[in-house]
Amino acid sequence: MTLLDNLHIELPSWAFGNSGTRFKVFGTPGTPRDVREKIADAAQVHRLTGLAPTVALHIPWDRVDDYTALSDYAQDLGVRLGTINSNTFQDDDFKFGSLTHSDKTIRQKAIDHHLDCIEVMNQTGSRDLKVWLADGTNYPGQGDIRARQDRLAESLATIYQHIGPDQRLVLEYKFFEPAMYMTDVPDWGTSYAHVSALGERAMVCLDTGHHAPGTNIEFIVAQLLRLAKLGSFDFNSRFYADDDLIVGAADPFQLFRIMFEVVRGGALDSDSPVAFMLDQCHNVEEKIPGQIRSVMNVEEMAARALLIDTEALRAAQDDGDVLGANAILMDAFYTDVRPALARRRAERGLPEDPLAAFRASGYQARIAAERVGGTQSSWGA
Amino acid sequence: MTLLDNLHIELPSWAFGNSGTRFKVFGTPGTPRDVREKIADAAQVHRLTGLAPTVALHIPWDRVDDYTALSDYAQDLGVRLGTINSNTFQDDDFKFGSLTHSDKTIRQKAIDHHLDCIEVMNQTGSRDLKVWLADGTNYPGQGDIRARQDRLAESLATIYQHIGPDQRLVLEYKFFEPAMYMTDVPDWGTSYAHVSALGERAMVCLDTGHHAPGTNIEFIVAQLLRLAKLGSFDFNSRFYADDDLIVGAADPFQLFRIMFEVVRGGALDSDSPVAFMLDQCHNVEEKIPGQIRSVMNVEEMAARALLIDTEALRAAQDDGDVLGANAILMDAFYTDVRPALARRRAERGLPEDPLAAFRASGYQARIAAERVGGTQSSWGA
Amino acid sequence: MTLLDNLHIELPSWAFGNSGTRFKVFGTPGTPRDVREKIADAAQVHRLTGLAPTVALHIPWDRVDDYTALSDYAQDLGVRLGTINSNTFQDDDFKFGSLTHSDKTIRQKAIDHHLDCIEVMNQTGSRDLKVWLADGTNYPGQGDIRARQDRLAESLATIYQHIGPDQRLVLEYKFFEPAMYMTDVPDWGTSYAHVSALGERAMVCLDTGHHAPGTNIEFIVAQLLRLAKLGSFDFNSRFYADDDLIVGAADPFQLFRIMFEVVRGGALDSDSPVAFMLDQCHNVEEKIPGQIRSVMNVEEMAARALLIDTEALRAAQDDGDVLGANAILMDAFYTDVRPALARRRAERGLPEDPLAAFRASGYQARIAAERVGGTQSSWGA
Amino acid sequence: MTLLDNLHIELPSWAFGNSGTRFKVFGTPGTPRDVREKIADAAQVHRLTGLAPTVALHIPWDRVDDYTALSDYAQDLGVRLGTINSNTFQDDDFKFGSLTHSDKTIRQKAIDHHLDCIEVMNQTGSRDLKVWLADGTNYPGQGDIRARQDRLAESLATIYQHIGPDQRLVLEYKFFEPAMYMTDVPDWGTSYAHVSALGERAMVCLDTGHHAPGTNIEFIVAQLLRLAKLGSFDFNSRFYADDDLIVGAADPFQLFRIMFEVVRGGALDSDSPVAFMLDQCHNVEEKIPGQIRSVMNVEEMAARALLIDTEALRAAQDDGDVLGANAILMDAFYTDVRPALARRRAERGLPEDPLAAFRASGYQARIAAERVGGTQSSWGA
Repeated sequence: MTLLDNLHIELPSWAFGNSGTRFKVFGTPGTPRDVREKIADAAQVHRLTGLAPTVALHIPWDRVDDYTALSDYAQDLGVRLGTINSNTFQDDDFKFGSLTHSDKTIRQKAIDHHLDCIEVMNQTGSRDLKVWLADGTNYPGQGDIRARQDRLAESLATIYQHIGPDQRLVLEYKFFEPAMYMTDVPDWGTSYAHVSALGERAMVCLDTGHHAPGTNIEFIVAQLLRLAKLGSFDFNSRFYADDDLIVGAADPFQLFRIMFEVVRGGALDSDSPVAFMLDQCHNVEEKIPGQIRSVMNVEEMAARALLIDTEALRAAQDDGDVLGANAILMDAFYTDVRPALARRRAERGLPEDPLAAFRASGYQARIAAERVGGTQSSWGA
Repeated sequence: MTLLDNLHIELPSWAFGNSGTRFKVFGTPGTPRDVREKIADAAQVHRLTGLAPTVALHIPWDRVDDYTALSDYAQDLGVRLGTINSNTFQDDDFKFGSLTHSDKTIRQKAIDHHLDCIEVMNQTGSRDLKVWLADGTNYPGQGDIRARQDRLAESLATIYQHIGPDQRLVLEYKFFEPAMYMTDVPDWGTSYAHVSALGERAMVCLDTGHHAPGTNIEFIVAQLLRLAKLGSFDFNSRFYADDDLIVGAADPFQLFRIMFEVVRGGALDSDSPVAFMLDQCHNVEEKIPGQIRSVMNVEEMAARALLIDTEALRAAQDDGDVLGANAILMDAFYTDVRPALARRRAERGLPEDPLAAFRASGYQARIAAERVGGTQSSWGA
Repeated sequence: MTLLDNLHIELPSWAFGNSGTRFKVFGTPGTPRDVREKIADAAQVHRLTGLAPTVALHIPWDRVDDYTALSDYAQDLGVRLGTINSNTFQDDDFKFGSLTHSDKTIRQKAIDHHLDCIEVMNQTGSRDLKVWLADGTNYPGQGDIRARQDRLAESLATIYQHIGPDQRLVLEYKFFEPAMYMTDVPDWGTSYAHVSALGERAMVCLDTGHHAPGTNIEFIVAQLLRLAKLGSFDFNSRFYADDDLIVGAADPFQLFRIMFEVVRGGALDSDSPVAFMLDQCHNVEEKIPGQIRSVMNVEEMAARALLIDTEALRAAQDDGDVLGANAILMDAFYTDVRPALARRRAERGLPEDPLAAFRASGYQARIAAERVGGTQSSWGA
Repeated sequence: MTLLDNLHIELPSWAFGNSGTRFKVFGTPGTPRDVREKIADAAQVHRLTGLAPTVALHIPWDRVDDYTALSDYAQDLGVRLGTINSNTFQDDDFKFGSLTHSDKTIRQKAIDHHLDCIEVMNQTGSRDLKVWLADGTNYPGQGDIRARQDRLAESLATIYQHIGPDQRLVLEYKFFEPAMYMTDVPDWGTSYAHVSALGERAMVCLDTGHHAPGTNIEFIVAQLLRLAKLGSFDFNSRFYADDDLIVGAADPFQLFRIMFEVVRGGALDSDSPVAFMLDQCHNVEEKIPGQIRSVMNVEEMAARALLIDTEALRAAQDDGDVLGANAILMDAFYTDVRPALARRRAERGLPEDPLAAFRASGYQARIAAERVGGTQSSWGA
């Protein structure tokens, strides 16, 4: 299980803010009002689990004047700044598209936003620019599918020219939402075609909630690792649409199968280019414990995946022993790794039960008392 | 086609306000600031199409002090107030449920809200109280599925006791959203079981966007008409989730098949208890023309459905002539009824092309100029 | 865990025959040639697991001249004959429907087949007549949806009149397949409406593979138990369509949630009317071990569900403690019950590891050697 | 509409044989017993529609000793032999895979089968070798996803070396079935990655029934045309799974949108590399009329797509006029092109109503009378 030492899970700053549905966003006491408070909350998760050393930022939600100071602030709390996420879905100009817009001026505005993000990366020392494009159309005919692809390719190429030698562009795909008829980057094939055209430092981002019903996600993981184009994961889980629930909550067996392909494909090796990140919303549950639970879920399923007897598995597979091969997988899945992981934490100076430790810490009560006034962070700001 | 004379489509007041996704709500010039402006816009749709004589209200979004005055206002504009829609999804108390909540006090609060709605109905002369329940849970274990059903039954029974002899309770079902693991009224079977237990004046509301992928909606229409429990339609269309697109926009052939079962089951007869209503969002398209297009889509598909040669169809069906029976349906679907409907409008003193007439009317420019200041209506208020 | 003593899982005779897809049915050495050999194989599963005391028959596949003799044969092997399954999908007359057919003569033929099945039940002492209706249409217009429902109701009523006082009719629903446009009993609501109209001895059969993508099956379990209309389960699992894979293989967490609602709703109580049955196909895996694995999966998930601390769960639910309530569920799911179940088997005189015991028994080699010549059983005969 | 002259639709020989579901294959009088009778039936479709000049063969179902003679026979009937389809799903050796099998000997056998197919192509003068791979697994762990991809790549490369300079390999993808957990070529991305690695004469085959629920197929069409990798279409339609219904029957608007992207992307241009083919099953409807209806559906939707005012559409798109742009599309879709197409047929010496002409021809009665004895063709042989 030494590969488990290579597991680092990036936390999204926005997971600590309020989120919800188009029907309602519920607020909770103690919700951060700014990026520093988000980072402080994220640092709690790392302090208790040892698994989450970096925090992803979302621009403009997390925009500050001095990123060096922000970076120092994070390091004082024991974490580092990570991936920079762009946002081209909340400006009125982007109502009908951003990098794909038919108007060159608006495309340039969207490109410029990404160049701004790269500038932030230069200051924060971030490696990855993550592009999740909300572009798409709601009605057949509303946009020219083909022309939008061509414009997207051109826009991405322009952005890519500014990606530094130690930086990467990761392009996320999403089946639907917010666009309801056509999404400009709807599947891994589209993302793969674009990043292949861009070059070596362009990779695909796989969000586990962004697929059609029934999609075999671990297959895509295996395929992208084979093609050397899996750049990062956005972990979460779903029952229906992009529910953004706690990773592993909806289908823990699926998470296990994904982690098995992660191991199989070398994504937990020390030289792996794959970034593991959460992208979840805690609409009705507590946020910090929600993130703790999430990183523990990934750790637990990675630990189970690492238990698989790969030699016996290969033998059963080569033998056409369907039940035997499946049983080897299931045996690892059904093994309760929680006691072993608790001991592992203790050995590393971490609390055996991070959630209990968080509850005992009084942190939640403290921030609820301190963070009074101001505007709670949410996707709006 | 005389049955077409029985087609009346209720407009939702909220379709004229701003709407969007959890990512962004775009505003547009001229968007109503209050319920009167919404009704004024709705009246335009009726004036131009002759199809939309009533407007549904949403409480509390459309709450006023004097409903008699509001009713008079509407009638002066040529329309009437229709269905009253309750809302138990935006109060912080309802975060974990309303009519299903484990806390009796909160359940009572939700019940009281519905009694308030019935009081509004008494003043507006509305027939239908529509209950769409956002209740549900996001995580397995979060709620007790069975106990929530029992509490729901009890709450509905209490509300139903206050439904007047000429009033009805219509219970809408929805597959998912905003709840992501379990919805308390997820399917027509659940709604049917509840309204059957309540009594004769309780009916099911079928929203065409609220089903699992692949669901044969016209089957449900036929079944509920057979069981005499179809109370109303919420028309819209979808590609993925509850997209709330213009009815007929995503799959016009499906709308045609639905309208065929509507005719087949007597829902267009003069004594039909079925209310036809839109429930759409115009997130990126113009709102008033969007509603005009919608009622015309329903009218066009009803007209096509009425073209079906039902005697020939039955003969082909009884004959096992699969292609022949299907061809009879398709022939009606492919027949271009638009010229005939244009003539029909002209005969009734309506513009042949309602959309062109709207554009020519200058109404949009007028409201854009007049409706300055204030807060544009949206789901939030 | 004493409720576990009430868990009995019926095996389908056809699971021991060959099955496949429309593309290919693969045969395997030792496959039964007749119903006696199927029962012999089923008896092995019960001998090793103590969980599967009955075998369901499919008429006409398992038709014999002397059911009393067959029953005696089964009892000699330690098992009993169970549910009788009708078949109205392989006779050329039923190409366009059976109980729903527009031709009264063909409907009567289908009714008569069910009366024959009841006669078999009278001889075998079976309680349940299970009706899975393959009726449906492939193209819009091919059949009259409404008229077919009315004919179905009439046919079922005629059959129901012959159901004895200690017998039951259980009506299965299925989302699609073999019909591709419209299935006459597509959902639990339709089955519920029909069995409610029939009477007390008519119940719904829930096949876990027969739902639309994303359907919350445990909700339906809870609802049908609440309505006292859940008659039986057909257990299997699926990734895409009606895959008929080993129960628990595709989504063990879903099976756990279903078993939790089973317990919650009293379906494991000693007086429960719910019959638990497998309905699976072992297209590429070994059949007898496939059935052993299946009954063990149900047992394991029932055992995990019985571990749930229901008092703590209710407290967390009432408290709005989303993560806490979910954690109570997950804790039970992640607990490895296999060692305890192995001990339980040993205490009952059963092998601790039924699969290993089967392999050690030499049974498979014996039947492979003995069952030479003749025609292997499959769905065709 | 001159582009319509470029529309040629290849017919699959197997569409004229019997087909069905895993539950039942119904036979019909007059069903071909061999490939010559299939070609004779296909020639009827072309004679009456002028749209279907070629017939695809399936090896080994359509294997003959003398392909030159078969080719001559076809030409005497006015048609030519087209795409050669391989089959690696019915040999017992391929139970656990063919081109992906872990056993090199079996992989070689599968490769050799494709080399045999290329030899057939050399004799028939066919351009395309179509590879639809049924390979996949039913249970997690059964196979090594990654290793299977690597072996697939190697096998395809070997086959591709034998593809002549005027020949092509087209690789079809399919979401699921017959495999139920993992399909080795499940999506266009996988097919694209493989054919890109092979070379210029390797292309993707898009079967309109092989996608996850909700997939925007016209997007994939547009994308593959943009990437110059769309080799051919397998047309059919679906409500649920791979229903293989008549193209356009389930969602005519979707077929229209697909044909619009076909036109938009140049796939109807005279130098287009895209082959249009049907791949349907007529399980319950008449087969020859089913094929006639199908080619007419493609023709009708192509004609509608060609009516779109592309200049006005682009203007509306650039204007952000969502409703206007959509209306331009819908106007073309709702225009009844059938009279114009009937006239076009008459001008070309074809019957105005091909289906009526077929019924009047007496062909069906003749083959029913003549084709007595022997074994009707089906997927089995």
